[in-house]
Amino acid sequence: MKITATRRFIPVVLLAVLLVLPVLADEGMWLFNKPPKDLLQKTYGFTVTQEFMDHLRLSSISFGGASGSFISPDGLVLTNHHVGRGAVQNLSTKERDLMKTGFYARTRAEELKVPGMELRVLYEIEDVTDKVLGAEKPGMTAAEAADARGKVIADLEKETLEKSGLRGVVVSLYSGGMYHLYKYKTHIDVRLVFAPEYLIAFFGGDPDNFTYPRYDLDVCLFRIYEDGQPFKSDHYIKWAPRGVREGELLFCSGHPGSTGRLLTYAQLEFLRDMSYPFTLANYKRRQAYMHEYAKKGEEQMRIALRNLFGIENSLKAVTGYQSGLLDAKLMEKKLKEEQAFRAELAKSAGLQTEFASAWDEIAEAQKKYASFYKPFTFFERANAFYTTYFGIARNLVRLAMEKPKANADRLREYRDAGLSSVERAVLSPAPIYDEFEILKLGDSLAQLKEELGATQEVKWILGERSPQDVARELITGTKLKDIDHRKKLMSGGLDAIYQCQDPMIKLALLADPLSRGLRAKYEKEVEAVETRNGARIAQVMFKLKGTSIPPDATGTLRMSFGVAKGYVENGKKIPYETTFAGLYDKSQKAGNKDPYELPESFLKKKAAVNLAAPVNFVSTCDSIGGNSGSPVVNRRGEFIGVLFDGNIQSLPTRFVYEDTISRSVMVHGQGIIEALLKVYDAKPLVDEILGKR
Amino acid sequence: MKITATRRFIPVVLLAVLLVLPVLADEGMWLFNKPPKDLLQKTYGFTVTQEFMDHLRLSSISFGGASGSFISPDGLVLTNHHVGRGAVQNLSTKERDLMKTGFYARTRAEELKVPGMELRVLYEIEDVTDKVLGAEKPGMTAAEAADARGKVIADLEKETLEKSGLRGVVVSLYSGGMYHLYKYKTHIDVRLVFAPEYLIAFFGGDPDNFTYPRYDLDVCLFRIYEDGQPFKSDHYIKWAPRGVREGELLFCSGHPGSTGRLLTYAQLEFLRDMSYPFTLANYKRRQAYMHEYAKKGEEQMRIALRNLFGIENSLKAVTGYQSGLLDAKLMEKKLKEEQAFRAELAKSAGLQTEFASAWDEIAEAQKKYASFYKPFTFFERANAFYTTYFGIARNLVRLAMEKPKANADRLREYRDAGLSSVERAVLSPAPIYDEFEILKLGDSLAQLKEELGATQEVKWILGERSPQDVARELITGTKLKDIDHRKKLMSGGLDAIYQCQDPMIKLALLADPLSRGLRAKYEKEVEAVETRNGARIAQVMFKLKGTSIPPDATGTLRMSFGVAKGYVENGKKIPYETTFAGLYDKSQKAGNKDPYELPESFLKKKAAVNLAAPVNFVSTCDSIGGNSGSPVVNRRGEFIGVLFDGNIQSLPTRFVYEDTISRSVMVHGQGIIEALLKVYDAKPLVDEILGKR
Repeated sequence: MKITATRRFIPVVLLAVLLVLPVLADEGMWLFNKPPKDLLQKTYGFTVTQEFMDHLRLSSISFGGASGSFISPDGLVLTNHHVGRGAVQNLSTKERDLMKTGFYARTRAEELKVPGMELRVLYEIEDVTDKVLGAEKPGMTAAEAADARGKVIADLEKETLEKSGLRGVVVSLYSGGMYHLYKYKTHIDVRLVFAPEYLIAFFGGDPDNFTYPRYDLDVCLFRIYEDGQPFKSDHYIKWAPRGVREGELLFCSGHPGSTGRLLTYAQLEFLRDMSYPFTLANYKRRQAYMHEYAKKGEEQMRIALRNLFGIENSLKAVTGYQSGLLDAKLMEKKLKEEQAFRAELAKSAGLQTEFASAWDEIAEAQKKYASFYKPFTFFERANAFYTTYFGIARNLVRLAMEKPKANADRLREYRDAGLSSVERAVLSPAPIYDEFEILKLGDSLAQLKEELGATQEVKWILGERSPQDVARELITGTKLKDIDHRKKLMSGGLDAIYQCQDPMIKLALLADPLSRGLRAKYEKEVEAVETRNGARIAQVMFKLKGTSIPPDATGTLRMSFGVAKGYVENGKKIPYETTFAGLYDKSQKAGNKDPYELPESFLKKKAAVNLAAPVNFVSTCDSIGGNSGSPVVNRRGEFIGVLFDGNIQSLPTRFVYEDTISRSVMVHGQGIIEALLKVYDAKPLVDEILGKR
Repeated sequence: MKITATRRFIPVVLLAVLLVLPVLADEGMWLFNKPPKDLLQKTYGFTVTQEFMDHLRLSSISFGGASGSFISPDGLVLTNHHVGRGAVQNLSTKERDLMKTGFYARTRAEELKVPGMELRVLYEIEDVTDKVLGAEKPGMTAAEAADARGKVIADLEKETLEKSGLRGVVVSLYSGGMYHLYKYKTHIDVRLVFAPEYLIAFFGGDPDNFTYPRYDLDVCLFRIYEDGQPFKSDHYIKWAPRGVREGELLFCSGHPGSTGRLLTYAQLEFLRDMSYPFTLANYKRRQAYMHEYAKKGEEQMRIALRNLFGIENSLKAVTGYQSGLLDAKLMEKKLKEEQAFRAELAKSAGLQTEFASAWDEIAEAQKKYASFYKPFTFFERANAFYTTYFGIARNLVRLAMEKPKANADRLREYRDAGLSSVERAVLSPAPIYDEFEILKLGDSLAQLKEELGATQEVKWILGERSPQDVARELITGTKLKDIDHRKKLMSGGLDAIYQCQDPMIKLALLADPLSRGLRAKYEKEVEAVETRNGARIAQVMFKLKGTSIPPDATGTLRMSFGVAKGYVENGKKIPYETTFAGLYDKSQKAGNKDPYELPESFLKKKAAVNLAAPVNFVSTCDSIGGNSGSPVVNRRGEFIGVLFDGNIQSLPTRFVYEDTISRSVMVHGQGIIEALLKVYDAKPLVDEILGKR
């Protein structure tokens, strides 16, 4: 399954390699304001209209690291179960485990308000490239230029909020070759309408994750409210009256997190040799201790699963990305493409002088980055403090420090445009389980000690005590579970923070200076250099090839397209769609045992289900983590399915697209209706979805 | 000897007790813009002219916690040896110990530039009471009112700097009942001209400190330069052609640090029961380990003496102040006066309603203060980090944090008006001796652990290690001895600080949040309450009695007066002046042994010296720590002597003035000339002083 955990420091995706080959047929996560009109016309005879794009955009929803869509005029929203999973878990208790039982609100009154959820719709896109790049003056260092741009960006974002009430976010495309201002409407009253049982949503579990054929009802329905009433959405996706045929053109609209197709070779090496190995080792140790914890009892299992899913999902995803980078052929192809482009560049003396150093400067920045990658990750990315409490504490500390500053001088995530989101996150009433937090924090502190043991901060934090003892002391000592305590700290300003005796706040204060130092170092010595030189490479690419190549994914709304299509794996033909018959068959063959156990509802209602109805299907359309929950529509813009995964072969497409065996995996729209009607007896909901009311 | 160490948090001196009795004849440290004209006219038939006051003010010099004066038109400055002591020590090395040998620059070229010294002259005083108090709005809390006043004060100080280049400092008088803006010219090129040997400057040592009769040549001469040339001072004090007669009226102009004559009874109790006992214990442990250290060798002795003098001086002074508070009679008198004033207040229903609660609110604030006095002292006053390096590190950290803020939002000492002084202090090349610093820091950390051991910060700082080990690691690890390193950090802003790996910087960063928290608490819950209510008490006093009672000392320029006069101690008459004969006699009787050992120069030149010439003398004029170095002049404004001490009986006058046995002690002007001519063969210097060139 695909989901991008919201990481604040996803390295800026850089444009660096000009593909010598033209874009492959279905490649590309396209900007909504620059759709591939010619390509679609030429390849599929499809005419892209403004109306088509606007409607798709305004029906699409950002789940903050994942995707969704409006599917009724009454604010009904569809996404994946694994995207809604956090909400489902937060609404669960020991006594009422919605993960296990599933949930269906038969009336609106029964819909459950989700704590702390925030959804966004992209209302407008404005090209602000000239304004942002206009801030750079000749002679500025990379870091000074980044500062200057940052101030303009902060002003643009603030102005958006003030003028329109929309949340403005300036998105850097082509690594700073282009800047677009995205304006979002934010929804914060979100209620759970329907969630199937975990067993069917994640049928096949971790073993089947990132595989195909597949049989998952990975869907979840929410409803957006405004002023206590269901939100009237002018735009929503109508359900397609029939299924999808093999070879049929379809479109996917969602928020791919990040790709690295345009990274320089040096950046790929950094990922391969430094970032991914560290990240994978990290996931593996978390996976191991959480499995141990889950064995302690049912409640522990429930709690561990909250985190385990995401970790195992990421572990598999990053393993897949890394498999691409460990593939000598892929890396050779990347190197040759870069060399070829640089050779082409060298033919023009002017371009050579102006741009040739860009790759070398990026390579130099990677070396620097490697020298402090670990402390940076442990401190500023808070890897050393793997507990929800620390996240809350840090936000409280930084809110107090940043809010009094002028908007443009703040750390980016604390600027006016995003402030209310941070504040809501701090006050989220999502449950926290202390024993589990002690385990997480203890292990992350242990990892800190193992990796950076000799530094003064580590000595300060741990002294001679064991990481586990320190973790227990911190978690049992903190009062941050109490939301009133958080509120008080949030309204008390820096004085309240400084006077606070809460040990987690003190830890956040202790870690803050070093974290900021490492962040400043990263921003100046790595990010700014990557951006400046990525932008230079983009400029020369625009000069030589125009803007026909889409930018790498940036977690923002993109449109991709492709066809529903099976593929051949190890000589075996894999059909483009799966059916309920296949689902029941697979479960039966596995003795209905974990992870192929069906929920009682599916077993009980088997006779009622049309076994020929489709459950999942695959398509060539381009996607990556973050696309989870993306609506997939046909030529008429009608709902065909919802993207929830890619097959294992799709993972290296993070770096190089291919479409012979790489596929995105969708829950079929017809399968959703079949299950809602036959298994869950949810006729009113189906009527709303099909517009029959 | 009297000297006020510059403590940033000397509690605001509060007006609280209306003396039921009139001001005693010679009592009072008077404001230069409100001299006691009537009193002087009535008591001594002396007419105070504006010219007399202006001349005395512009001839007076602030040494930052002590005093001095211009004594020639060529920028020659006289103060005490113990005031110039830091400079003399900083100019000394293992090979050239100026403390031991003394120093005399026979030519201007030989004058030694003093690192980091800063002198100030008070050019102007402006009453800004209305502006400052006008910032308070009805309904504000004490803390909000303090904030509002603080902003106006910051603006006034900044404006002074911008408009006139003078350093503006708003002084709060009568605990905020009155505000005056003092405008100083600052001199930073200061050179050492003459210093006698330590043996004669501090003849009698610690045993004779704060005693009389006395025989100290406690003088030191500097010269102020501007643009590489001796500074031409329009105002300087001419030497009196003859000595002082008993009973003669004289005036003292200097910077008394703080008195507590107008403190409320609750504040006196706080000093007696909390502040002084802690402070005294602190001095005693420092005194003990420094004496131990001094025994290790001559160089260690030299180094220890740098600190020991100040500590023993303060120890004796505070012991004397405390003796006053431990005197049941004195305290009873204070209580009765307060009760009497409150009873008088109660006669008017209006005044009673408006002002009666002021004393109770101050008393309440004392209770709060007691609850965090120790952590506040350890952290914000840096008692836990007793090393020069920490002072530098904290200033670097706070400079980086405060400078980007708007002027009025900064911690007071980092506002524009005082910024250059802080920056100069950070870059001071004064020598630092690491082994000694380890000793100091180790003991202060040990004290921290003993007193606050259980807090999280203490655990962070010390872990399971011994305070001595931690101190050694910090001092041997820091690179702050290197002034270029300091410069780099100072110019690098917060990023440089955050990225800095220097352990002392990290310690300062670690301690900063807690320190700020405690400071905010102090400022809000204690200082603001004391100020608001002190001002209320002042207001009602002004209403009932006018402003004929001088405000408590505030470390700023004041004029006091009195007569040269002996006294009777234990039935024995103590003459008002001592002579060289007495000096030689005392030394001889002690076998010329420490602390009554005379320097070689005095022994060698005994025959040349006029043994009848006066060395020291005493007077009833009012003084306290900070008055060290104050010029004392006769009715014609001519130099009579320089104040350097008070007798032991004068110490309780911090709280209650008396003049039967309490005396200020001066070096006699004629004694200075005698020594310079006969012992030091410094005729050119004497010629300059006497205006014979």
